[in-house]
Amino acid sequence: MVDILHRVGIKASPKDVYKALATIEGVSSWWTNYTQGESKVGGVIKFRFEAGGIDVKVLELEPEKRVLWQVIEGPQEWLATRISFALKQEDDYTIVLFKQQGWREPVEFMHHCTTKWAIFLMSLKSLLETGKGAAHPSDVKIDNTNS
Amino acid sequence: MVDILHRVGIKASPKDVYKALATIEGVSSWWTNYTQGESKVGGVIKFRFEAGGIDVKVLELEPEKRVLWQVIEGPQEWLATRISFALKQEDDYTIVLFKQQGWREPVEFMHHCTTKWAIFLMSLKSLLETGKGAAHPSDVKIDNTNS
Repeated sequence: MVDILHRVGIKASPKDVYKALATIEGVSSWWTNYTQGESKVGGVIKFRFEAGGIDVKVLELEPEKRVLWQVIEGPQEWLATRISFALKQEDDYTIVLFKQQGWREPVEFMHHCTTKWAIFLMSLKSLLETGKGAAHPSDVKIDNTNS
Repeated sequence: MVDILHRVGIKASPKDVYKALATIEGVSSWWTNYTQGESKVGGVIKFRFEAGGIDVKVLELEPEKRVLWQVIEGPQEWLATRISFALKQEDDYTIVLFKQQGWREPVEFMHHCTTKWAIFLMSLKSLLETGKGAAHPSDVKIDNTNS
């Protein structure tokens, strides 16, 4: 099993960062505009991109602290992976520790997804610090997959 | 052992991407302006940042295909890790598969470095596609470490 790990620091309160992670309006604004579902424990959120989509089940929602999703539909390599965001305050920043855990193999697609998660976490940072994220379809493109 | 993996696609020839990875002028333009040393097999390259530095020994240089470094000085967590860039052409892109292999533990600093490598690889992409990278000290900051 291999994991994708990231860390960003955001000049915003844990409360505001949590809101951007734990509400449909929030995730729509930094990951993909095409998001629907219910962000409550046991609920399903459907994230859509031009090339397909990902459905997650919400496993944990701990205000200002933690969000945990399990992927239930999506690219084969993503199935059963768990995506978590852990928050803590340091200086004027809310630190986000991100993990996507449970990749079976370090395939080339995992390399792509690692880079792309950085792009989306910087979109989250931008959303909170400037009011404007770069969610799909306005996301920064990183390679020849147009995603 | 855990690894950092990334993938970017650059609209440039493998020859030009290789040059940006295998010459001091190249790496100075996308990673850190404060770079000295000899980019030849067996040579040592010294990368400096405001907060410290990293020395690597060049293990492999295969034109248009591959660059491999071993870290010989730097943050304790980086020691003995190997940094590689593998190149291949797809469509109009040169695909860069990046790995930093041999982290002993998935410490918080590794989360930071994963995100930051994405930032520097996007700087490499920008250098080749627009003529301008964002090397340190003009690198995009991602958190409260000012790096």
